[in-house]
Amino acid sequence: MNYPSKFIENAVEEIAKLPGIGKKSALRMALHLLKRDEKQTLQLAEALTIMRTKTQFCTQCHNISDHEICAICSNLKRDKSVICIVEDTRDVLAIENTSQYRGLYHVLGGIISPLEGIGPGDLKIESLLNRITGKKGTEEEIKEVILGLSPTMEGDTTAFYLTKRLKALDVKITTIARGIPIGGDLEYADEITLGRSIVSRIVYE
Amino acid sequence: MNYPSKFIENAVEEIAKLPGIGKKSALRMALHLLKRDEKQTLQLAEALTIMRTKTQFCTQCHNISDHEICAICSNLKRDKSVICIVEDTRDVLAIENTSQYRGLYHVLGGIISPLEGIGPGDLKIESLLNRITGKKGTEEEIKEVILGLSPTMEGDTTAFYLTKRLKALDVKITTIARGIPIGGDLEYADEITLGRSIVSRIVYE
Repeated sequence: MNYPSKFIENAVEEIAKLPGIGKKSALRMALHLLKRDEKQTLQLAEALTIMRTKTQFCTQCHNISDHEICAICSNLKRDKSVICIVEDTRDVLAIENTSQYRGLYHVLGGIISPLEGIGPGDLKIESLLNRITGKKGTEEEIKEVILGLSPTMEGDTTAFYLTKRLKALDVKITTIARGIPIGGDLEYADEITLGRSIVSRIVYE
Repeated sequence: MNYPSKFIENAVEEIAKLPGIGKKSALRMALHLLKRDEKQTLQLAEALTIMRTKTQFCTQCHNISDHEICAICSNLKRDKSVICIVEDTRDVLAIENTSQYRGLYHVLGGIISPLEGIGPGDLKIESLLNRITGKKGTEEEIKEVILGLSPTMEGDTTAFYLTKRLKALDVKITTIARGIPIGGDLEYADEITLGRSIVSRIVYE
């Protein structure tokens, strides 16, 4: 496409590098910004720059944070004996939104994926093992590790690898339940989910 | 949602102001940028700032331009006796991509839309009329005006208004053809399009 201005062309190319954005959407956004007040574009550019240069990661759980230790890790009301292992910050936000979990997190920063060339060494796994062994015998000893990973090929591979490494550390290992989603229809559930939900059925007490 | 960092929250809010982007997509983009090299974000921010502050509009046709007169208006090979009136720059790009048009353009910068509070006064209509009367009797006299507007309620309203204003100026007024799209199936065409395509049928010569 022949853009009428090289400034637009450059902006469209940079916007189109974002995930899920093609050149057509990028052009739409660029023209939108050109129609709006100059202030809006400058605020957007500044917000992006500040976010990228100032955001830190919690040195304990590796979640995004404004401080060295994040708000969840430093919260005295949270249960420090449980860690939920998740892929990235979006999963932390999703679980926090349920208000059902009061423990801590450990953000792996990805998931084992041979196709994308991501191995265990690229994830914060050593840091997790050190975190668990380091707290042994202290007041903050970790008693349970919850695997909060997606039930996909990559998620299951990562869970399998983590289980193998964690077994040596004498902690309880659990995983978030797989089964029929609330509101879901038995008839339309896929065979694997339905099969697993029968095998790992819940006992009424 | 409780974002883990106020920098992220600010960036998400600014990104979500773009058209077609909700908070979830905005968060996905912000986390994407955080994972990538810092350079990518800085380049994006700079490209946006430069685009917004340096892009000019052609003083004749109001298309986006790097100069006072755009590349199309200043192209000696284009037919200066025909002007195609379009809503915005995207329409110019779309028509240019067909390689079927060698005349000039006039970008209205929008379309009459009472619902969005856009009236004739918000569009570059006076500038169009002045452009036509100004060239009267010169070598670049405008002989034909093509209405290149979408066949929607707003497009038709704008076309109706323009026709009324242009009639006094003694120029030929035409509109881009409406009809069955090439490759389209008669059976599945809507009644209005099919009806119009019969009324304004093309004579084989």
